[in-house]
Amino acid sequence: MNSIGVFGLGVMGANLAKNMVNHQEKVAVYNYTPDLTENFIAEFPNENAEAHYELESFIASLEKPRKIFMMVTAGPVVDSVIKSMIPLLEKGDIIMDGGNSNFQDSNRRYHELKRAGLHFLSVGVSGGEEGALNGPALMPSGDPAAYKQVAPILEGIAAQVDGKPCCTYLGNEGSGHYVKMVHNGIEYADMQLITEAYQFLREKLGLTVNEIADVFKSWNESELESYLIEITSEILTHVDEETKQPMIDVILDKSGSKGTGKWTSQNALDVGVPLSIITESVFARYLSGLKDERVLAESELTGPSIIDEEIDKETWLNLVKEALFMGKIAAYAQGFHQYKQASDHYGWELKLDEIALIFRGGCIIRADILNPISEAFKADPNLPNLLLSPYFKEKAGKYQASLRQVTMKGMENGMSLPCFSAALSYYDGYRSAQSGANMIQAQRDYFGAHTYERKDKDGIFHTEWY
Amino acid sequence: MNSIGVFGLGVMGANLAKNMVNHQEKVAVYNYTPDLTENFIAEFPNENAEAHYELESFIASLEKPRKIFMMVTAGPVVDSVIKSMIPLLEKGDIIMDGGNSNFQDSNRRYHELKRAGLHFLSVGVSGGEEGALNGPALMPSGDPAAYKQVAPILEGIAAQVDGKPCCTYLGNEGSGHYVKMVHNGIEYADMQLITEAYQFLREKLGLTVNEIADVFKSWNESELESYLIEITSEILTHVDEETKQPMIDVILDKSGSKGTGKWTSQNALDVGVPLSIITESVFARYLSGLKDERVLAESELTGPSIIDEEIDKETWLNLVKEALFMGKIAAYAQGFHQYKQASDHYGWELKLDEIALIFRGGCIIRADILNPISEAFKADPNLPNLLLSPYFKEKAGKYQASLRQVTMKGMENGMSLPCFSAALSYYDGYRSAQSGANMIQAQRDYFGAHTYERKDKDGIFHTEWY
Repeated sequence: MNSIGVFGLGVMGANLAKNMVNHQEKVAVYNYTPDLTENFIAEFPNENAEAHYELESFIASLEKPRKIFMMVTAGPVVDSVIKSMIPLLEKGDIIMDGGNSNFQDSNRRYHELKRAGLHFLSVGVSGGEEGALNGPALMPSGDPAAYKQVAPILEGIAAQVDGKPCCTYLGNEGSGHYVKMVHNGIEYADMQLITEAYQFLREKLGLTVNEIADVFKSWNESELESYLIEITSEILTHVDEETKQPMIDVILDKSGSKGTGKWTSQNALDVGVPLSIITESVFARYLSGLKDERVLAESELTGPSIIDEEIDKETWLNLVKEALFMGKIAAYAQGFHQYKQASDHYGWELKLDEIALIFRGGCIIRADILNPISEAFKADPNLPNLLLSPYFKEKAGKYQASLRQVTMKGMENGMSLPCFSAALSYYDGYRSAQSGANMIQAQRDYFGAHTYERKDKDGIFHTEWY
Repeated sequence: MNSIGVFGLGVMGANLAKNMVNHQEKVAVYNYTPDLTENFIAEFPNENAEAHYELESFIASLEKPRKIFMMVTAGPVVDSVIKSMIPLLEKGDIIMDGGNSNFQDSNRRYHELKRAGLHFLSVGVSGGEEGALNGPALMPSGDPAAYKQVAPILEGIAAQVDGKPCCTYLGNEGSGHYVKMVHNGIEYADMQLITEAYQFLREKLGLTVNEIADVFKSWNESELESYLIEITSEILTHVDEETKQPMIDVILDKSGSKGTGKWTSQNALDVGVPLSIITESVFARYLSGLKDERVLAESELTGPSIIDEEIDKETWLNLVKEALFMGKIAAYAQGFHQYKQASDHYGWELKLDEIALIFRGGCIIRADILNPISEAFKADPNLPNLLLSPYFKEKAGKYQASLRQVTMKGMENGMSLPCFSAALSYYDGYRSAQSGANMIQAQRDYFGAHTYERKDKDGIFHTEWY
C-alpha cells in the first residue's frame, strides 16, 4: 500500500512527488491524461513510485485513511477533481490542495467535504519548481487532527532551517491558502522595492549593471540577506548571448501577474487594512503593461530630467540600502497587520511568529528579516504592528531618514518610486496621532449626514451645516 | 392612474418622490412599514402624491407599462423587494433601482428580470438628500427602449446645467451603478486631496482655520471650483457652540466609509487599471481608524518635526493650489481610465464625455474641471488617458512641478500626504518610457519560469538562469 497519492503531474506536482519518494514515502501518482504519468515514471523510475492510469486503482492503492495531494490548476478544476474522487473515498480520508487556490474557495471546500465526512487541507506551497523538488515552504490548514496524520510527510519534504521544518499547522478552514496569498503579496512588494533601488542606483547614481550586481551581492551579506536580493544580483551578471548586452536590458519592461497579489490587495480592502505598498506594487505592474502609452507620454508630458550633480556615491549607496530595508520593514508591517486582522475577522487564530518562521526556507520571500519578525511576534503575540516592536522601532528610527532622502531625491529627479513613496507615507501616517480624517468626517456629515464622533465626549453627532 | 411608483420612503426615496411630484408627476408611494408612508403624506400633502399601504394597490395604481423606482437598502433587500413585486407585474413593466447597489448584483438582476419579461434599470443617484429633493445627478443603464419610457421623468427631476439634464442613458446591464461606484471612488480621492492641501496649509504654512476658509473660498473662484472645495470652506467657518473652538478641531479624526470606494479599488484590481490615488484615499480612511495605535506610535516612532523656516506664504499658497489641481487631474485620469477599461472589458460602450457632463450638477464631485474633461473625450472618444489630451497635458506640464515641490516639502517635514505622493508617482511612472518591469520579469522568470518578452524581437523567452 502507498502512504500518499499525488494527483496532478505538472512540474510542481511531479517535483513534490519526487521529493516525497526521496523522503522514503511510498507514492502513488496519477494524472488525468496518461502522458504526464508515463513521463514521470520514465524519468524517475523508483520502487517507491507507483504509476496509476485509473482513478479507481490509484485510490485503492492508498493506506487508510487515504492521503491524496492534489496539484492541479486552481479554480473549477479543483472542484471537478474532488467530485470525481468522492465516490471512491471513505469517511476520514484526507484531500490536500497544494495549488494556488483562492482561500474563499478553500473555505467552501473545507466545509463541503466536512459535511461529506472527509477532510480537506489547504496547503500553500511556495518555492517554485526547485523548492518543490528540494524543499518548499508549506502552509497547511484545516482540521488539526487530519493535519497530524499528514504532518510527518509534509514536514519531511519541507525545507528545513535551523533544524525546523518550514511547515507548520496554521489554522482551520482555508487559512493556509490565505497565508500563501499574502506571502505572494509581500513578494510583489519585495520585488518592486528592489526594482526601485535598482532604478535609483542605475539612473541617479549612474552605476553600471555589473557594479549594481556587486552592490546587491554585498547587500546580501547584510541584514538585507534574502533570496530575492541574491537572484537580483545573479540576474544582473547575465549577458544575452545574441546581443552581448546585459540580459536585463534586453527584457521588455512589461510585467505580468497571476492574481495572488491582486487578491491580497482586494482582501485588504475587505478586511480594512491599509496595504498601500503591496497594492502599489500591483499597480506598478499594471502601469508597466501600458508600454505604448508610456512611450508616447514620455515625449508628451513634461517633468524634470535626472539632474547632473555631484553626489557622493558611497553615501548614497548606503542611503539606498537603508531605504530599501526601511521599505521592506513597512511592507512586512502591512502584510503582518493583514494576517492579524484576517485572523480576528475569520476566527483563525493564526500564530504570526510561526508564519514568519516557516517563510525562512523554501519560499520566495525567505530572508534574514524573518528571524526578528518571528521574535517580535513571539515576544508579543498581540503586537498590533511590527513597527511598534522594540527591534523594528529602532531600525525604523534609524532608517526612515534614508528612505525620506532617497524618495525625495527620486522625486526631485522625476523618478517614479511608488513603493518607496507609499512606504514613507504609511510610516508618517502611522506615527501621526492627528490625521486629516476630521476633515473627511466633516465633509461626509455635510453632504450626506453621515455623522461623526467628537474628541471631547462619547457619542454620535451631526451638525446642521447649512 | 399614477405615472410612477416610489418604493421605499427613507430620506432619499421620500425626497425623490417629492421631486417627482414637484415636476408634475402623479406619484404613488409605498414603504414596507406604514410609518414612513404616513410621515410622508403628513409632511407633504399633495394631490399628486398617493399613499399606499398594500403592495397590490400600489402596483395596481400605476399606468402601464408600470414604472417603479426602488430606493431601498442595497444588498439582499433589493432582491426581496423585486421578488415580492414580480407576481404583480406584467411583461414590459420597468423596475428601477436607485440604491447604491453593487454593479455585479445589478448585472445579475438585469438578466434575471429580462428572462422574466421585465425591464430592470440601474439608476445611480448622487447628490445626497438635498440633491434628491432639488435635482440629483442620475446615472441610468439597462435596456435603451425601457429607458426611453422613463427618460422624461428622470431627466425632469435631475439637476440641470447649461440647459442639459444631469441624466443620460449610459449603457446596458448594471453600468449605471458602475458609473456611480467610480464616481464615489473619485469623490474619495477628491476629499483626501483637499484634506492633504488643508493639512499642509495648517501645519506647514501655519495658517489659522479662518485663513484657510478664506483660501478655499478664493480657490472656489478659480479652476478648482467645485462643490467639495465650497463645502470645505464652509466647514472651516463653523464654530462649535459648546467649546467655541473651530468645529473641525472638535471632530474626531477617524473616518468611516460605506463601501463604494473600496469596490472601486477592488474592481480596478480586477480590470487591470492602476488606481493608486483613489486606493490611497481608501487606505487613508482605514489608517485613520487606528487612532489608538497612531497616538501610541507618535510617541514611539521617530521622524522629523515640522521645520521652523521662513517660507513665503503667497508663493506656497499658489504651489499648494496648483498641487491640488494636479492631484485632481491625476485622480480623474485614473478614474476615467477605469471607465474606459471597464467599458471595453464588460462591453458597455460608455461615452466618457457624457459621463463627465452629467457629473456637472447634482452630484458630490460637481466641478468646473468636468467641462474640459468632457471636451477632451468629445474631441477624442478613444483618448487613452486624460493626461494625453491637449488641455490637461498643458496643465500638467505647468503644475507637476508644484505637486513635486509640495510633496517633497511635506516629506521633508514628516507629513503624510499619501494621495499627493501617489499622484506624483503615477504621473512620473506614466511618462516613463522605460519602467522597472524588466527587472520584475527577470525575477519572475528566474524563480518561476514565467517567461518574458524581448525588446528587440517578438516571442516569448525563458532564460536558464542557473
